[in-house]
Amino acid sequence: MAERFTSERNLKFMLYEVFDVEAMTRYEYFKEHDREIFDLVLETALRIGKDLLQPTLQEMDKNPPEFIDGHIKVHPMVRSFMKECGEGGWIAAGAPFDLGGQQFPLMISAAFRFILSAANYSASVYPLLTTGAAHLIESFGSQEMIQTYIPKMFSGEWQGTMALTEPQAGSSLAEITTLAEPTDRGYYKMRGQKIFISAGEHDGVENVIQLLLARIKGAPPGVKGLSLFVVPNKRIQENGELAPNDVNVAGIYHKLGYRGSPITQLSLGEKDDCRGYLVGQPHKGLSYMFQMMNEARIDVGMGAAAIASAAYYASLEYTRERIQGKRLSAKDPAMPPVPIIEHPDVKRMLLFQRAMVEGSLSLIFQCCQYSDMIRVSEGEEKERFSLLLDLLTPAAKSYPSEMGLVSVSLGLQCLGGYGYCDEFPLELYYRDARIHPIHEGTTGIQGLDLLGRKVLMKDGRALELFFEEVGKTMRAAKEIPALEPYAQRLYNACERLKEITSHLVQLALKKNLELFLADATLYLEFFGIISVAWQWLLQALSVQKALGKNPSEREILFYQGKLYAFRFFFHYELPKIEGLGKRLMESDGLTVDMKESFFSD
Amino acid sequence: MAERFTSERNLKFMLYEVFDVEAMTRYEYFKEHDREIFDLVLETALRIGKDLLQPTLQEMDKNPPEFIDGHIKVHPMVRSFMKECGEGGWIAAGAPFDLGGQQFPLMISAAFRFILSAANYSASVYPLLTTGAAHLIESFGSQEMIQTYIPKMFSGEWQGTMALTEPQAGSSLAEITTLAEPTDRGYYKMRGQKIFISAGEHDGVENVIQLLLARIKGAPPGVKGLSLFVVPNKRIQENGELAPNDVNVAGIYHKLGYRGSPITQLSLGEKDDCRGYLVGQPHKGLSYMFQMMNEARIDVGMGAAAIASAAYYASLEYTRERIQGKRLSAKDPAMPPVPIIEHPDVKRMLLFQRAMVEGSLSLIFQCCQYSDMIRVSEGEEKERFSLLLDLLTPAAKSYPSEMGLVSVSLGLQCLGGYGYCDEFPLELYYRDARIHPIHEGTTGIQGLDLLGRKVLMKDGRALELFFEEVGKTMRAAKEIPALEPYAQRLYNACERLKEITSHLVQLALKKNLELFLADATLYLEFFGIISVAWQWLLQALSVQKALGKNPSEREILFYQGKLYAFRFFFHYELPKIEGLGKRLMESDGLTVDMKESFFSD
Repeated sequence: MAERFTSERNLKFMLYEVFDVEAMTRYEYFKEHDREIFDLVLETALRIGKDLLQPTLQEMDKNPPEFIDGHIKVHPMVRSFMKECGEGGWIAAGAPFDLGGQQFPLMISAAFRFILSAANYSASVYPLLTTGAAHLIESFGSQEMIQTYIPKMFSGEWQGTMALTEPQAGSSLAEITTLAEPTDRGYYKMRGQKIFISAGEHDGVENVIQLLLARIKGAPPGVKGLSLFVVPNKRIQENGELAPNDVNVAGIYHKLGYRGSPITQLSLGEKDDCRGYLVGQPHKGLSYMFQMMNEARIDVGMGAAAIASAAYYASLEYTRERIQGKRLSAKDPAMPPVPIIEHPDVKRMLLFQRAMVEGSLSLIFQCCQYSDMIRVSEGEEKERFSLLLDLLTPAAKSYPSEMGLVSVSLGLQCLGGYGYCDEFPLELYYRDARIHPIHEGTTGIQGLDLLGRKVLMKDGRALELFFEEVGKTMRAAKEIPALEPYAQRLYNACERLKEITSHLVQLALKKNLELFLADATLYLEFFGIISVAWQWLLQALSVQKALGKNPSEREILFYQGKLYAFRFFFHYELPKIEGLGKRLMESDGLTVDMKESFFSD
Repeated sequence: MAERFTSERNLKFMLYEVFDVEAMTRYEYFKEHDREIFDLVLETALRIGKDLLQPTLQEMDKNPPEFIDGHIKVHPMVRSFMKECGEGGWIAAGAPFDLGGQQFPLMISAAFRFILSAANYSASVYPLLTTGAAHLIESFGSQEMIQTYIPKMFSGEWQGTMALTEPQAGSSLAEITTLAEPTDRGYYKMRGQKIFISAGEHDGVENVIQLLLARIKGAPPGVKGLSLFVVPNKRIQENGELAPNDVNVAGIYHKLGYRGSPITQLSLGEKDDCRGYLVGQPHKGLSYMFQMMNEARIDVGMGAAAIASAAYYASLEYTRERIQGKRLSAKDPAMPPVPIIEHPDVKRMLLFQRAMVEGSLSLIFQCCQYSDMIRVSEGEEKERFSLLLDLLTPAAKSYPSEMGLVSVSLGLQCLGGYGYCDEFPLELYYRDARIHPIHEGTTGIQGLDLLGRKVLMKDGRALELFFEEVGKTMRAAKEIPALEPYAQRLYNACERLKEITSHLVQLALKKNLELFLADATLYLEFFGIISVAWQWLLQALSVQKALGKNPSEREILFYQGKLYAFRFFFHYELPKIEGLGKRLMESDGLTVDMKESFFSD
């Protein structure tokens, strides 16, 4: 079993050198913190990951949750872990002090979560979901609701979830039919089916609090008729005791990976006794839920990068130890075979992984930084960061998810036949990683979101701001001879993106919506590559700065590795936009015109 | 469970319309056959696939072979299947009549195997391996050896294998240490360890015949000291009875997928009583084994295309049935949701799969056709087909394997969350498919083989012949207005390939081997894309020809689908060479110069 699953050095590079999280402590909201505390957070996460999560990774995969007598039994570690996260204040890491939170910048709590996800993705989801659900209550719930649920969720005694999907409503939430019938007793009577609900019930906690979309009786059709409810699996009686709330587990799914988390089917109100509590205003449910969904999308990107990180270090370890084949430059046939890390094609696979892991992670931290800036800014500035975050979210979800698959697959490939066997964790990572292009909105949905919504919103203002941000990085890079050619490559790529966007937006203006969006997934890929190229240039700038400060020999090795991964991205990955761009400019309607009947035979 | 796993219509299109397998019957060697017989072969394969193999697919995956008391227990279907293949003459399908074979063109036996692999890849491997092993004995073994082993192998009573890999010798066969000590009794005493041996032992047959590489005591080091042996698990005594031959199963591997086949660790000669029989001349083992390896490589490409085929039809079925979301062009919000196959992005994922499955399969049949032509031709013509087959083999192995992963993954994606669950077979295909870029030479090894050996051999003669072949197709396509622009695209792509090859060969001539081969995997990808584009143009020519003959309405639907898949390949896949080409021309040594120490931290 590989030991390392992440690089502390790289996380510190990101946090302190690239995104300067210490600067956040100059703002009133974050002023209680300093670098020492941040370092402690990382240390704690690494300890929990190493001591609690990683040792159970394969065990949780081999012994997935069981559905027994209507209830779900999970690995006993889940309970200890939720307790540890509750007691350490990690579920509430980003919440305000007055709610019992730690008021950390998102960059810090994200780093914490990244480490846990790299150690054991399935396990990391339990507290993560709870944080997101609590944040929804905190943002839109009543004071009473906050007092009732938040403390128990933050302490890790209660699990939070997001319950959206129904058998007939997956990507299309407009089809949700779960019904909420008003009563005159302050609650709604809930009836319906929810499926694919992560951690919808389990014995690692005392109670599960579903943040659930439903339709109030008589509400308008479509997404405009959806309201947000809190539906606890056990409701809180007046005497404070818990009583069953008619939330019934109908089953769990047997999955390819991500097997340490129970994904549940729930049936609400079978006995006509399921109570739901309205959060905020009626019919505003989707807009509220988007807060949690957007956070969850960043988390998914982070989870994908985390699994790819674990796979990268596992394959790195193997390639250093496995002796096989001679160097091509070895002229003497008696030369001994070498560790396979010496072969250029193996280095290519390792550099690919590093470029993906660290490039994706950088994009995630960029989103977290914008989120932190939204918290501390106002007016036009706040609007600016909001637009940037909105624009980057689909890429931050999809790029790590899609490229994470390729990255983990190359990690597995580094081990050859052994990578295919369960003696090594690569096959597990390969299965776990496959969930990410699916949950929290498939890659196809993210493409439609980016091109059909984010690019068009406010007359293209978000994309304009994006180019301004990238422009700042390019201008700084142009001043440094070693980076100048890369700034130029990124500049050309941005010009191409502008050209393609303008071509596509013309189609939208002509109301040819199907043609406009036909290749939205390719547009998303194109945009993702450019976003990550930008992040790599940003990192290269920090490296150049650090190299000017006479670093230690060990530090130089780290920075040199960074520069190779940076160059790798620009030489091997950025060129992929050439082919994508060619296709995106065609808009010949191939996939629009293809008829279902042509798929016969 | 999806019903269809392949398209009979498409197989007939390939065999009769594109590759005109009937023309082979004009040659003396194949003259006993005709189309009626060929049709019967397809029918039989479809029946076996549907009745015997597909029903046990998930069962064999969930109950993989067990290692009990030193022996391996496989699913009972294996025995019936081997019997069926033996009795039907399918293991001997390609062998000459005088050995009890059916003397079928490889195109036909490949189609048979393709169907079985699509129904249940793990199961299909048992007879496939036996065919390959028997062919080795047939080609290089003595008459006595042929008489001893071939009949029992062809009847399906004995299993054949290829035993190459050892703990210290995977990609680098030069490191093989299994020892063969000569005796004066007509056999060698064998001692060593073999790992990753597919079907190295199991209870579905009476005996297993290992075709095994070992080193005769005192042989030179490296691949030049390797000899080929027949090592039966049970040796044949003078009275005709079987006796243990000291071939011991040390264990089996627990794998991500391909779980219906036992992959074994073997230990030879623990009691100093393992007898091996030399095949052909001493020290010629690797060159003999290359016959089986090259056949196996084509089979791997075929297996990859077969799994992708099954995944394609399973996802096609789902997308036709799953109702979700409205058409983007639906102006009225009251319009009902549609089957997801109506969404362009879903059609894109389906077309991608069809383009991969049918493009890959075409490349496989092209190789089979060359192989059949080698059989019936002589002198310069034979040499020509041999060179073409040698050149295409690494692409025919790798392109379907690598793109098969992406294809199956997109199939899974079509099902969203359901694709991740084992209610549908997609997650199984996703796991099964992952073996193909690994076994019979990893993708990296294929890249080195293509660029480092095949492109250079006979002063580049093979590539010259390849361009001649592609040129013929392009010239024919240029005559047809609908195809002319595609012929032009392929022409440009070929010119680019020539430019890149010449750039790289310059590096080889300067003896800069590491730099020459650093991006060999990318070169392989580039070459693979062009090869499959050529195959699609070839198919499009046959479609145009057929459309001119007033086909039925149903046939028109099939041909229209073909044309869309063809266009899809040229518009979405061929452009990928742009980015690859850009990188291949750089040769900056990035992965050569990257140091192991830069991967620290």
